[in-house]
Amino acid sequence: MTKLPPIDLRSDTVTRPDKVMRAAMADAEVGDDVLDGDPTMQALEERVAGLLGTAAALWVPTGCMGNTIALMVHLRRGDAFLAPEAAHVLGNELGTAAWLAGGMPRPLPWANGPGRISPAAVADAASESGPYYSLRTTLLCLENTHNAAGGVVTPPDEHALLVSAAAAGGLRVHLDGARLWHAAIAMEVPPAALTVGVDTVQVCLSKGLGAPVGSVIAGSTEFIAEARRIRKMLGGGVRQGGVLAAAGLVALDRMDQLGKDHANATFLAKGLVDLGWEVDLPETNIVLASVANVRSTLEQLANQGVLATPMAGRVRFVTHRDVTRGDLRTALRRIAR
Amino acid sequence: MTKLPPIDLRSDTVTRPDKVMRAAMADAEVGDDVLDGDPTMQALEERVAGLLGTAAALWVPTGCMGNTIALMVHLRRGDAFLAPEAAHVLGNELGTAAWLAGGMPRPLPWANGPGRISPAAVADAASESGPYYSLRTTLLCLENTHNAAGGVVTPPDEHALLVSAAAAGGLRVHLDGARLWHAAIAMEVPPAALTVGVDTVQVCLSKGLGAPVGSVIAGSTEFIAEARRIRKMLGGGVRQGGVLAAAGLVALDRMDQLGKDHANATFLAKGLVDLGWEVDLPETNIVLASVANVRSTLEQLANQGVLATPMAGRVRFVTHRDVTRGDLRTALRRIAR
Amino acid sequence: MTKLPPIDLRSDTVTRPDKVMRAAMADAEVGDDVLDGDPTMQALEERVAGLLGTAAALWVPTGCMGNTIALMVHLRRGDAFLAPEAAHVLGNELGTAAWLAGGMPRPLPWANGPGRISPAAVADAASESGPYYSLRTTLLCLENTHNAAGGVVTPPDEHALLVSAAAAGGLRVHLDGARLWHAAIAMEVPPAALTVGVDTVQVCLSKGLGAPVGSVIAGSTEFIAEARRIRKMLGGGVRQGGVLAAAGLVALDRMDQLGKDHANATFLAKGLVDLGWEVDLPETNIVLASVANVRSTLEQLANQGVLATPMAGRVRFVTHRDVTRGDLRTALRRIAR
Amino acid sequence: MTKLPPIDLRSDTVTRPDKVMRAAMADAEVGDDVLDGDPTMQALEERVAGLLGTAAALWVPTGCMGNTIALMVHLRRGDAFLAPEAAHVLGNELGTAAWLAGGMPRPLPWANGPGRISPAAVADAASESGPYYSLRTTLLCLENTHNAAGGVVTPPDEHALLVSAAAAGGLRVHLDGARLWHAAIAMEVPPAALTVGVDTVQVCLSKGLGAPVGSVIAGSTEFIAEARRIRKMLGGGVRQGGVLAAAGLVALDRMDQLGKDHANATFLAKGLVDLGWEVDLPETNIVLASVANVRSTLEQLANQGVLATPMAGRVRFVTHRDVTRGDLRTALRRIAR
Repeated sequence: MTKLPPIDLRSDTVTRPDKVMRAAMADAEVGDDVLDGDPTMQALEERVAGLLGTAAALWVPTGCMGNTIALMVHLRRGDAFLAPEAAHVLGNELGTAAWLAGGMPRPLPWANGPGRISPAAVADAASESGPYYSLRTTLLCLENTHNAAGGVVTPPDEHALLVSAAAAGGLRVHLDGARLWHAAIAMEVPPAALTVGVDTVQVCLSKGLGAPVGSVIAGSTEFIAEARRIRKMLGGGVRQGGVLAAAGLVALDRMDQLGKDHANATFLAKGLVDLGWEVDLPETNIVLASVANVRSTLEQLANQGVLATPMAGRVRFVTHRDVTRGDLRTALRRIAR
Repeated sequence: MTKLPPIDLRSDTVTRPDKVMRAAMADAEVGDDVLDGDPTMQALEERVAGLLGTAAALWVPTGCMGNTIALMVHLRRGDAFLAPEAAHVLGNELGTAAWLAGGMPRPLPWANGPGRISPAAVADAASESGPYYSLRTTLLCLENTHNAAGGVVTPPDEHALLVSAAAAGGLRVHLDGARLWHAAIAMEVPPAALTVGVDTVQVCLSKGLGAPVGSVIAGSTEFIAEARRIRKMLGGGVRQGGVLAAAGLVALDRMDQLGKDHANATFLAKGLVDLGWEVDLPETNIVLASVANVRSTLEQLANQGVLATPMAGRVRFVTHRDVTRGDLRTALRRIAR
Repeated sequence: MTKLPPIDLRSDTVTRPDKVMRAAMADAEVGDDVLDGDPTMQALEERVAGLLGTAAALWVPTGCMGNTIALMVHLRRGDAFLAPEAAHVLGNELGTAAWLAGGMPRPLPWANGPGRISPAAVADAASESGPYYSLRTTLLCLENTHNAAGGVVTPPDEHALLVSAAAAGGLRVHLDGARLWHAAIAMEVPPAALTVGVDTVQVCLSKGLGAPVGSVIAGSTEFIAEARRIRKMLGGGVRQGGVLAAAGLVALDRMDQLGKDHANATFLAKGLVDLGWEVDLPETNIVLASVANVRSTLEQLANQGVLATPMAGRVRFVTHRDVTRGDLRTALRRIAR
Repeated sequence: MTKLPPIDLRSDTVTRPDKVMRAAMADAEVGDDVLDGDPTMQALEERVAGLLGTAAALWVPTGCMGNTIALMVHLRRGDAFLAPEAAHVLGNELGTAAWLAGGMPRPLPWANGPGRISPAAVADAASESGPYYSLRTTLLCLENTHNAAGGVVTPPDEHALLVSAAAAGGLRVHLDGARLWHAAIAMEVPPAALTVGVDTVQVCLSKGLGAPVGSVIAGSTEFIAEARRIRKMLGGGVRQGGVLAAAGLVALDRMDQLGKDHANATFLAKGLVDLGWEVDLPETNIVLASVANVRSTLEQLANQGVLATPMAGRVRFVTHRDVTRGDLRTALRRIAR
């Protein structure tokens, strides 16, 4: 173990609320959100619905719960759903899409570069039909940015083609937008440009935006009514959640600052290339490096005071608001040793 | 609708964090509880484990999730579980005990007064055996205080007999202690006196104790390890939860103040009796009144500025830290009209 | 153990196909019922639909699968269902109503004698409403005859009142008619008189009617289409099932012979009373006896060459087509020792 | 529609019991298999256990139920399982592996030719480890012959390497052997040579072997005890199943005749090649043809009196005991038109 304070690039979930955010939490107006609705939670939900262009929205404790609720609404036993290979709902949510939401996954191969699937593949899968005893493919699950592919973005035009192919094939569409904000900032489009045509979307407040706890799911009023009921089933119906929603509102104000994290990720990636590492140039705030042995590399990095995580057989570094350009310079120096 | 600010006796979940609690939240030391553990959450978990006499404990967003996780650990498809009639896990948790944890409920009748079951009934049920295609009764689920029975307590000696009967029959025991603090204060025993012999227990921080969000489940180290994994499955693995745990720590400091709520409940019940209502004298902070028509009574009460809820075919009033003796006098005056 | 060939009164499931039935099986025209439909299965399904007054019907391997399929169609997670206490779906189907169909049971007390519930209780339960986070009671599950109550019948007029109460409260109705044929014969009404107003019904061919394997579920065309899909999911979609359906068709021809089993049950019950046993006079083919110790009584009976089973804390004897009046005289002589 | 009697190459499930098999069914000794065990079912189970080299075996109504039971025993929520791409449990069992058995599928790519996966890929997947909130890969699911890959066999030596890799990685192994008999005959090895090292296996009696109904699962005594319980849960616990088991025993006697089906498949495939079709040369009784438009090709074939099915984007022809060499000549003539 090193004596140096480590530079934590494991995830953008490690960000801590600052004084401004904490003050907002301390001042939050609250109510019992199970009974009447909490006014600050409602304000947050309305704001997110506005940003995403949906009729309604609902706070949930985590992105995992948000995705699970959406899939529980969309899927029935005997259904199959499409998702890009290595999507978070496939490999990183403890199988809830399968055993809890009831769907059989049909992973689609990456086509237009890592993490991006082809509209033709969606159309093909959606057009299949079979006898009464066949799986029914009823849902397309997108992820933008795609985490395990290295934070890659799906641009609005490609998104539109995917959604159109799904609609033509009678599929519903859920968007895992845990880092949708990053995609929007990276492409300089409003978030709503990336939710066109989707039925439901989940966005995180506790990743790059820096809130301590919370995600939001958004969709039609009917969807949100059902989602509220399922949230209670799963144990996500909290009482005076306004203290958390207040942090979420502050977090949303800071969306533009994500651009700095993207620039930092590029800086880190180039630095690693200069050190001889094999890395993809990042589109957002995630840097994936291919190494001979992931586990031992992570251990060596940790010994040098640089924390990263394994991701789909590679080493993942994530930049975020609690890591400065200076920290990254230090990290590169430590790695260089 | 009345112009008077209503007196809210619907639940002790409506309490709002005060300045002291908010300050503690604003000052909380935090970490990423999914990755490393959040130090304030860990402090809360250790303190609750100490209070309950268990090896370990785990914060969860809600009591519902806490009970569900415990039942998911204990039950397998084909299992049955015992619980007192009208237990919260039977009627108030959207059936999760059945469809999510997989258990077939076997309600036991109230024997030693409302909400209290007989050790002999537990022993009888546990001793039944059948062929390989029979349900297997594997769990006893207790609730102390029993909400729908009117916040009644199960005393330590009776608890011990129930737990012994379960153990003798090879059953595991889960205790839904959403209001265990109230039972302990009412009987002037430490909370750990009411968890003797149980395998798992769930306690709430956001009911009488007044924290905005959160419950804790407690049990063996092995149970908590599995519970942590299931918490993540269900979407309850939050990041910088220390802001909520800090409120929980303040809430625990206030446990002794629950006695005031109990005295207030007795005051309210006597006042209602004086007005000719048919009510049980409360043992803790819940007053149940039998009325001819629950729905219309609740409406009339609301019109007079007194909020209550339906519970098991009766009208339920709950006293809590945000309702003073003076508020109750006002409530009784309004009801008297 | 006795050297005498035992008289088997454990269940009417023990009946064996006779020569006529076996010949019909050997001659059955068959097809692949998963692909095209098997002609003999289709003939059986049409005949049962006609007998029950429904639009369509579907063969299933067992009554358990039939009930489970119906409940899977009717119930969603978050739903509750009503059933008489000690109904087969509650205690004898390994909890599938809960963990597989997703319903939280709400047992209704016996009111109009054993096994029979009151229409008022159905109406009360159906009329309850609650906030979005409440269980929703959506289904009434009836059982005619009621097995654990001793094969008691619900007469057509009472059935009609129950179904009306359910309909008025917006509930669907499933009828577990494992021994519906017995009820119809005992009351001298056509089976369809006992299915008035139900959405779905399950009837057994392998109990009193004596087919080796099989049950049938019946309901609307839409229900049967969905049931066929679920039957495949659960692994009940067999191929050349016509060999079994042929036995079912023969079994249906023998429905009138059930009256002999009922008379035999009465004969047995009276004989037991004469021997000092405490038994209910049977309405159909099930005799329940109250004894001090069920397990030891069953062992003693077995030692004397009389086989019975435990049922709801009593000893159950079932008469059927493979037991003659003479066998019962022998059984009573053996018991008399 | 054609007036010609169609030649049915849709599946080997369409075979019909002949006189000998029907006579055996008519003469079968039977019992109540839920209560005591049916003697003919027990004889069948013992014989299959012997053929497969396992301690015990259990009759089930269908191969789907057999696979589902095995996966329910092996998997828990939060588990992942490996299977070759396009395995029957992934795409053809209505998602039961996911929603009922609780596993998240991890399809492995075909490596050593169609339908065959590499031991190294198994080892890699099994060696992955992650934090407590990761999916746990606990099971390898094999399929021999692999249906959707065209009835291809996995030879004993390759099977042994796969099973070794699984064991080294701590995985259990289930073998979907719906057509294991075909694999054994094709490679001229005893069936037990293809079950070495597996924990559980499912074999079908109603495909090539020609029994009307039934499959068998096999494994340890403990597995079979649990499987028997789950069979009852799923509604597969039949009563006088001996009438079906008798057909199964006759079917097993005919295993050697599968070689004729294999030769017929090769004859058909060569005939199709001569007609300009693009087909793989079959290893067993399944012929897959690549065509421009599957749906319209199937319609044209049906119009000519040749029935086939779609399978994984191709046209599938299956030879079986009810199709003669002469029938295939006729089929080829009809196709040639």
